[in-house]
Amino acid sequence: MIIVMKPGFTQEELNEVVKAVESRGAEVDKIEGVATSVLGLVGDTAYIDPDELLTFKCVEKVLKVQEPYKKANKLFHPEPTIIDVNGTKIGGGHLGIMAGPCSVESEEQVVLIAKAVKASGANFLRGGAFKPRTSPYSFQGLELEGLELLKIAKQETGLPIVTELMSVEYLDRFVEDVDVIQIGARNMQNFNLLKEVGKTKTPVLLKRGMSSTIEEWLMSAEYIMSEGNENVILCERGIRTFETATRNTLDLSAVPVIREKSHLPIIIDPSHATGKRDLVEPLAKAAIAVGADGLMIEVHNNPAKALCDGKQSITPETFDEIMKKIEVYTELEGATI
Amino acid sequence: MIIVMKPGFTQEELNEVVKAVESRGAEVDKIEGVATSVLGLVGDTAYIDPDELLTFKCVEKVLKVQEPYKKANKLFHPEPTIIDVNGTKIGGGHLGIMAGPCSVESEEQVVLIAKAVKASGANFLRGGAFKPRTSPYSFQGLELEGLELLKIAKQETGLPIVTELMSVEYLDRFVEDVDVIQIGARNMQNFNLLKEVGKTKTPVLLKRGMSSTIEEWLMSAEYIMSEGNENVILCERGIRTFETATRNTLDLSAVPVIREKSHLPIIIDPSHATGKRDLVEPLAKAAIAVGADGLMIEVHNNPAKALCDGKQSITPETFDEIMKKIEVYTELEGATI
Amino acid sequence: MIIVMKPGFTQEELNEVVKAVESRGAEVDKIEGVATSVLGLVGDTAYIDPDELLTFKCVEKVLKVQEPYKKANKLFHPEPTIIDVNGTKIGGGHLGIMAGPCSVESEEQVVLIAKAVKASGANFLRGGAFKPRTSPYSFQGLELEGLELLKIAKQETGLPIVTELMSVEYLDRFVEDVDVIQIGARNMQNFNLLKEVGKTKTPVLLKRGMSSTIEEWLMSAEYIMSEGNENVILCERGIRTFETATRNTLDLSAVPVIREKSHLPIIIDPSHATGKRDLVEPLAKAAIAVGADGLMIEVHNNPAKALCDGKQSITPETFDEIMKKIEVYTELEGATI
Amino acid sequence: MIIVMKPGFTQEELNEVVKAVESRGAEVDKIEGVATSVLGLVGDTAYIDPDELLTFKCVEKVLKVQEPYKKANKLFHPEPTIIDVNGTKIGGGHLGIMAGPCSVESEEQVVLIAKAVKASGANFLRGGAFKPRTSPYSFQGLELEGLELLKIAKQETGLPIVTELMSVEYLDRFVEDVDVIQIGARNMQNFNLLKEVGKTKTPVLLKRGMSSTIEEWLMSAEYIMSEGNENVILCERGIRTFETATRNTLDLSAVPVIREKSHLPIIIDPSHATGKRDLVEPLAKAAIAVGADGLMIEVHNNPAKALCDGKQSITPETFDEIMKKIEVYTELEGATI
Repeated sequence: MIIVMKPGFTQEELNEVVKAVESRGAEVDKIEGVATSVLGLVGDTAYIDPDELLTFKCVEKVLKVQEPYKKANKLFHPEPTIIDVNGTKIGGGHLGIMAGPCSVESEEQVVLIAKAVKASGANFLRGGAFKPRTSPYSFQGLELEGLELLKIAKQETGLPIVTELMSVEYLDRFVEDVDVIQIGARNMQNFNLLKEVGKTKTPVLLKRGMSSTIEEWLMSAEYIMSEGNENVILCERGIRTFETATRNTLDLSAVPVIREKSHLPIIIDPSHATGKRDLVEPLAKAAIAVGADGLMIEVHNNPAKALCDGKQSITPETFDEIMKKIEVYTELEGATI
Repeated sequence: MIIVMKPGFTQEELNEVVKAVESRGAEVDKIEGVATSVLGLVGDTAYIDPDELLTFKCVEKVLKVQEPYKKANKLFHPEPTIIDVNGTKIGGGHLGIMAGPCSVESEEQVVLIAKAVKASGANFLRGGAFKPRTSPYSFQGLELEGLELLKIAKQETGLPIVTELMSVEYLDRFVEDVDVIQIGARNMQNFNLLKEVGKTKTPVLLKRGMSSTIEEWLMSAEYIMSEGNENVILCERGIRTFETATRNTLDLSAVPVIREKSHLPIIIDPSHATGKRDLVEPLAKAAIAVGADGLMIEVHNNPAKALCDGKQSITPETFDEIMKKIEVYTELEGATI
Repeated sequence: MIIVMKPGFTQEELNEVVKAVESRGAEVDKIEGVATSVLGLVGDTAYIDPDELLTFKCVEKVLKVQEPYKKANKLFHPEPTIIDVNGTKIGGGHLGIMAGPCSVESEEQVVLIAKAVKASGANFLRGGAFKPRTSPYSFQGLELEGLELLKIAKQETGLPIVTELMSVEYLDRFVEDVDVIQIGARNMQNFNLLKEVGKTKTPVLLKRGMSSTIEEWLMSAEYIMSEGNENVILCERGIRTFETATRNTLDLSAVPVIREKSHLPIIIDPSHATGKRDLVEPLAKAAIAVGADGLMIEVHNNPAKALCDGKQSITPETFDEIMKKIEVYTELEGATI
Repeated sequence: MIIVMKPGFTQEELNEVVKAVESRGAEVDKIEGVATSVLGLVGDTAYIDPDELLTFKCVEKVLKVQEPYKKANKLFHPEPTIIDVNGTKIGGGHLGIMAGPCSVESEEQVVLIAKAVKASGANFLRGGAFKPRTSPYSFQGLELEGLELLKIAKQETGLPIVTELMSVEYLDRFVEDVDVIQIGARNMQNFNLLKEVGKTKTPVLLKRGMSSTIEEWLMSAEYIMSEGNENVILCERGIRTFETATRNTLDLSAVPVIREKSHLPIIIDPSHATGKRDLVEPLAKAAIAVGADGLMIEVHNNPAKALCDGKQSITPETFDEIMKKIEVYTELEGATI
C-alpha cells in the first residue's frame, strides 16, 4: 500500500499515520522525494483499511498495491486448487458439470433428470430445495422434502448433490446430506452465513453477487477460507447492467481474471446469467473455451411446466447435444470431465 | 397482467395457459382481436410469475400491469404509514433524523455523541454494533458489547436506538433491546432474515440493496409485511454505478417514485451513499427538499480515529450546522422533526 | 502522478520510463525507500497517459494525484465562473432557468410557451430544432425551420435561446442565431464537434453522457476550453443504471462533486433524467437545494400531443407552480434567478 | 404493439389515440375483454413512439411486440448477410480477423505489423489514423498522414484497411482510401455521422456504445441502412459496468442475441473490451466458440513504446500463437478465415 502525503504535513501528523499503520501490524517505509512525500507500507497490510487512512487530513491518496485477500490469493498458492468431492474433482483441468432442475418438484422428476444428465456426462446433480425468490408469493421450493428427493436421486445415480443453503438453521442438515453447499448471489455478502459454512469441511459453491466486483467476490471466498474451509468453488452467473436483452450480463472475462489472481476453480452458469434457453449452448462452449473449470446448467424434463425459471431451462435432449458439442472444446483445453 | 399470444396457437395450448393461470388463483379474460390475441388476467395476480408464463411456446410476451406487491402498495393503502417508535414518529410529515457513529467504540464515545446529536435535534441514535465488512480482516464491530453500550446511551438520552441485525441468531436480543432493527443493503435479499424480522413487531429499517431495483426493494418490504410486521421504513443509501467520484450514486428520484407506489416512509443516508463528508450537507438538504421522511447521518467525535468509515463521518459541530440548515427546508415541506 | 515500480527493476528499465515521462514534458522525482521504489512526477502531467506508463514491464501501478484537466480545474481558477449570455448570467449565485418544448413544432406553439415560461420567471428559452432520436423513423425535429421559429420567440420575449447542435455543418448558423449551443449527451464525446464549438465564443451547454464519469465530462469541457471557449455550462441529465422505474438515474451528487473540482456552472435537467412529469417538481426543488446553478425543464402547452417526449413534459400552469415553489429554495441558497 | 387502456376511458379519448396511431401509418385492432381493454396495433409500427402513446391519459401501458428496426431485422431477411470487402468476406461462416496497431505511428511500423499479421492469417489491417481520446492533451493520431501510411501498408500486403472516421469532413477521403469505415463507440449515436456513411457504399464497422443496449445498437445500424448502405458489421467492444478489474465488461452474450434478432455479422474486440493483453487469447477463443463472425485485435511490434493503448496490445508473436489456437475453434464452428 502506498500513501501519498499532502504537501506541508507536520511531523506530528505523520506520527499519527505511522502509529495507525503500526497498530494494524504493518510497517512504514518513508520514501522522501524532493517534491513529493510518499509512505510505502511494508509487511501484512490485510488489516489496514485504505478508507481509514483517508480520514487523516495529511493523507492525499492511498493506492493498494497488494490484493487484500490472502488465502484466496494465487501469489501465496500458485498451483490451482483441485477440489475433491467424494472422488469427483473440480479445478486444475478437471471440469465439474453440474446439471439438474431449478427446483426439485417430485421424486419422479428429479430421478429422471438425474439419470438423464448423468448419461449425458454430467458429474454433479444440481437442484433447488430452498429457492430464493424476489416475491414472497412465489413458490419457495419443497425445502427439506426437496433435500430428501435429492438424496434419493443421488442414491439412484451416484451423482454428488449441489444445492443452495439460505439459512444457518439448516447447516447441519446440509453438512450431512449435501456434497457441495451453494451460496447464492443474493447471499454472497451474508457474512454470517459465509463464516458458518467456513467452519465446516463441505465444499462451497460461491456464486458472484449481482453487483459484486471480482475483488469483493474473492473477499467473500476469503471469509469462508479464513474460518478453515478452503474448498471454495467460484461461480459466475451474470452481473447486473443496463442491458435488458438478457437477464444479466455474463462476465466471461472473469474467468481469466480470476485465473490470474486466485488458485480457486471457477465455473459458469449460463442459464441464470441469460435467462434464455437458446443462449445456453453458445455460452457453454464459450465458457469452456475461455478456460472455465465447469458449468452449471438448468435441465428440466418439461420446461413448460417447471415451477420456476422454466424460460431458461433446457430439456435433457438439448443438454445431451450440448455435452456432445463441448466434448471437443474440453479436449482443446487439455481438460477432462 | 396481459399475455400476448403468438399467432397460430392451438386451442390445446391456450387451455394449458388458462389452466396454469387459474391454478395460481387468477382468471383469464380472453380478448380477441382480428389480428392479435391477448389474454387479460383478472383477479389477484401476485402468485403468477411472468417468467413461468413465458415458458409456454404459444406465449409471445407478458406485460405486468399491476405491481406485484400488495401490502406495500399505495393502491390498497392510500394514506402514508406513520410508524410510531415508542412515541417518536416517522412518516406522514414526521421526519426521523438518525445520527450517530458508524461503529460503537466505547461508552464514552457513544454517550458523548448521543448527547450531542440529541442536542442538535436528532430523534434517533444510530450506531453499529455488528458491522458488515467486505474483508474478514477488518474490524467487525463490538457486537453484543456494542449493543450494551447503545442501551446505556439510550438511557442517558432517551433516544431510540437503530442498529443493524446481520444474523437471526441475535434476533431475540434485538427485539428486546433495540427500537428499530436495521437490515443492511447486503442483506436486502436475505429472505430468511426478512421473514424472521417480519414475525416480530419491532420497526424495521430496510436499506436498499446496491443493485436492487425499486420494485425488488418493495418486494423485500413485502416479505417482512407478509409475515405480519407492517412497520417498515425504507432507506435509500446509494446504488452501484460506473461512477467512481462517489462511493455509490445516491438515487434521490427514489423518494418521489416510492411516494407514488407505496405508503411506506423513506429516509435517505447521504453518508454511506457518497462516502465523502463534504457531500453530506448538500445532499441532506436535497433529501428534505425532495420529500424524504428523514435522514441517517454518521456523526463521530473524532473522524480521524474512527474505527471504520471515518471518511464519511462528520463531527457533532458540523452535524449541528446541518440541522440548523435543514430546519427551514423541513418547514417548507410542512414537516416536523 | 505516482509510479510504483516492480521490485527488481533494472537501471535501464528505469531510464526508459524517465525518458518517456520527460518526453511528455514532466520531470521525475525518484523517491527511494527501503523496500519500495516510487517515482513522483513533477510538473505538468496533463500530457502523460497513465495507461501508457503501465505498458512498461517495470511499472507495477500508476496513481493519478492531480486531476487531468487544467482549464476546467478549480485549483487554477478558484472563483466560480459566471457566464454572461447577453446580460443573463449563470453561475456564482445566478440561476439559469431554461424552459420550453422538447421539440419546436409551430410558431404559435413556441411563442405561446416562451411567453408563458417568461411570465413564470424562466430566463432562457430551450427548444429542440434538431432532435437526436434513437430511431431513424422517429420525428427528427423541424431543423432549420425550427431555428427560425425559435428566433421569432426570442424576438417576442427577449429570452435567449438554448438549442442542440448535432453537426458541424450548421455551426455558423448556430453561432449567428443561438445564444447557448447545447451539446447533447450522445455527443459528449464527439470530440470533433467539441473542438469546433471550442473555436467559437458562444456559450456551450454540455450535457453529461449517459455513461460518462464526472472526470470524462470535465475532460470534454476541457476539449472546448482548450480551443479557447471557456463559456461552458455543465448539465447533469441522468446516468444509465440498472433501475427502470425512471428513464435514467439523476445523479444529484454530481453538483457538489463538480463544485469541489471545477469552477464551471452546473445545471440539472430533471425532465430528461426521469422521463416522468410528476418527478419534475420534487427533483427541481432538490436540485436548487443541492446547490445547482439552474434547471432545464421541458414545458409544453399540450403534453398529450407533443411530437416527442410528451411523457416528461409539464404544462405552463405546472411550470408556474414549480417556479413559485423554488423561489424560496433559491433565496435559501443566496441565489437569484 | 399493444396498448393497455386505463379503466373508464371515454370514446373521445379512444378516438384521439386511434387518430394518433393512424397518423403514423398503423392501424388499431380493438380487442375488448370483460374487464380489460387493449388495443393491438397492426401494420408498420416503426413510426410509432411508445413514449408518445404514454402521454395520453387514457393509456396505462404500452408493450412493444415487434422490434423497432426493419432493415436490420432477421424477420425480414432470414439469411445471414455476407459482406464482401473487395473479395474478403465477413458473415455467414466467413470470419474477418482485423489486426494491427491502435495508432499508426510510422511507415516502418505499420508495414512491419501488416506483413506480420497477414503472415499469421489476419485478413484485414486495422489501424488508427484519427484517434478519439478522452483528453485533448493526449496524442490524437497522425490523422491524414496516418491514412497515407495505411495505404502504403495495404499496397505492400493487399490487406483491406479498417480505420475510424470521426468527422464528416473526411468522409470523401475515407470512401476513396478505406475499405471498411469504423464508427467508434463514442459516435454510435452521432446520428449525423451515421446518416452520412449511410449514403456511401463503403462497408461500415459499427462499434457498440459503452452504455448502449443491443436494441439501440441495431437502431444505429438501421440509421445507416435506411440511407441505403446495408453493409454494416457490428462490433462488440465491452460495455460499461461497475467492475473495474477489466476496462469494460465484454458482453459475449450479445453474439447469440444478435444472431437471433439480426442478419448482420458481428465481431468481437477483446483488446479494447478488457484493456489487458493477457485476456486477449482466452476471450478470442471464447468469441469464436460463441459464434462471432470475426475478431478485432490490437497488435504492436513494441507494446512498451506504443503511443496509445499499449497495455492492451500484443506482439506479432503472440498474435501468431493466438491465430494458431483459434484455427481449430474456427473449424468447429464450420467457419473459414
